[in-house]
Amino acid sequence: MKKIKVSNNVIRRMPRYLRKLEELEAQGIARVSSSELGNLLGLTPSQIRQDFSCFGEFGQQGYGYNVSALKEEIAKILGTDRGYSAVLIGVGNIGRALMDNFCFSAWGCNLLCAFDVNKDIIGGQINGIPIKSMDELPAFLAENKVDLAVLAVPKEFALSVTDALTENGIEAIWNFTNVDIAEPDSPLIVENLHFSDSLLALSYYISEKKDEDAARAARMERQKAVK
Amino acid sequence: MKKIKVSNNVIRRMPRYLRKLEELEAQGIARVSSSELGNLLGLTPSQIRQDFSCFGEFGQQGYGYNVSALKEEIAKILGTDRGYSAVLIGVGNIGRALMDNFCFSAWGCNLLCAFDVNKDIIGGQINGIPIKSMDELPAFLAENKVDLAVLAVPKEFALSVTDALTENGIEAIWNFTNVDIAEPDSPLIVENLHFSDSLLALSYYISEKKDEDAARAARMERQKAVK
Repeated sequence: MKKIKVSNNVIRRMPRYLRKLEELEAQGIARVSSSELGNLLGLTPSQIRQDFSCFGEFGQQGYGYNVSALKEEIAKILGTDRGYSAVLIGVGNIGRALMDNFCFSAWGCNLLCAFDVNKDIIGGQINGIPIKSMDELPAFLAENKVDLAVLAVPKEFALSVTDALTENGIEAIWNFTNVDIAEPDSPLIVENLHFSDSLLALSYYISEKKDEDAARAARMERQKAVK
Repeated sequence: MKKIKVSNNVIRRMPRYLRKLEELEAQGIARVSSSELGNLLGLTPSQIRQDFSCFGEFGQQGYGYNVSALKEEIAKILGTDRGYSAVLIGVGNIGRALMDNFCFSAWGCNLLCAFDVNKDIIGGQINGIPIKSMDELPAFLAENKVDLAVLAVPKEFALSVTDALTENGIEAIWNFTNVDIAEPDSPLIVENLHFSDSLLALSYYISEKKDEDAARAARMERQKAVK
């Protein structure tokens, strides 16, 4: 189906489309035009049509999109129908939050098992997911089809655990450690959730707004002074 | 200093530059060229020069960048020297993980206080940060300069808590709820950490690689059959 290598920016928008379409479907809305979808997401209709055209033809000119069909199509593009399996490494606060509250299965991903070094929790389970010892990781990865690992270990173990994972055949990592775990040319697929990058972007946008507000206030002061 | 409205993509790269420069500084490296920095980050030198040019002149042609000076400059652009203050709403797993492990102060942000509805933890503290009742939120926001709120409440409370925050003067939210809390045209500054969007992007890249691998294998099969 995919006709061209799709840009990262387009890929990043696909999950947003999916979430919005799920919302619309839940509201009982059957059809949506690219301009309606654009209004909801703060994108132009042509942007949306262009994004979808990377993956083939979805809509019919003048009729808009069938919400459910488009949702299914995007979910498929994102691979949610492929039955990926995951393991989670590191059952600290973040690992625990993911096991407790994050619905992996809603996104087509099956979280099989978690691993940790803490003897107090090894052998237990959270939300039905067993917690095993890190010593058992190689055998587990040899015996099970595992498509990705969730890395939620403390910073200082990020690189050594990454090595252990790749040596045992893991090709994709969802990285919560805020450490760059792969060189740019590495074949390892890494998706980073760098919390600090996100906070710094927010800090930038706050600063930008404060500067704009200050500039506006200064302008108004000057105008008052002139009068 | 800022000469033009800077694109979102550029803003998103600035924290990555900052992290890499901190790493280089820690390694005792004093100067770095745009091509060296590019190699480390998987970006072209011209991309890097272009990004920096949005904010003025940093390097000297042929001499590269002074690592520490560039780091300071980028930190300033990102607003880490402005002393922003935050409150955190929702001391569940994610909230707790942030209070315990995320070093707000390293990014120039002062986490003043957390709020929750759970009587068992109200009055206590985590990592020196007090936990107060949600009932105390309006008074706290009235009495303290608070620049942003970290939203880590369960999904179903995301919108009502957002309303409570904006009604009490909060203009920026770091959103961990996986709910879209603002319309596209809202003046509220929202930075989302949508875990599921990130997992879906990873799922896409895994699928892309599996498809490429399968296509390559099929090609080789055909070549073998021809021989």
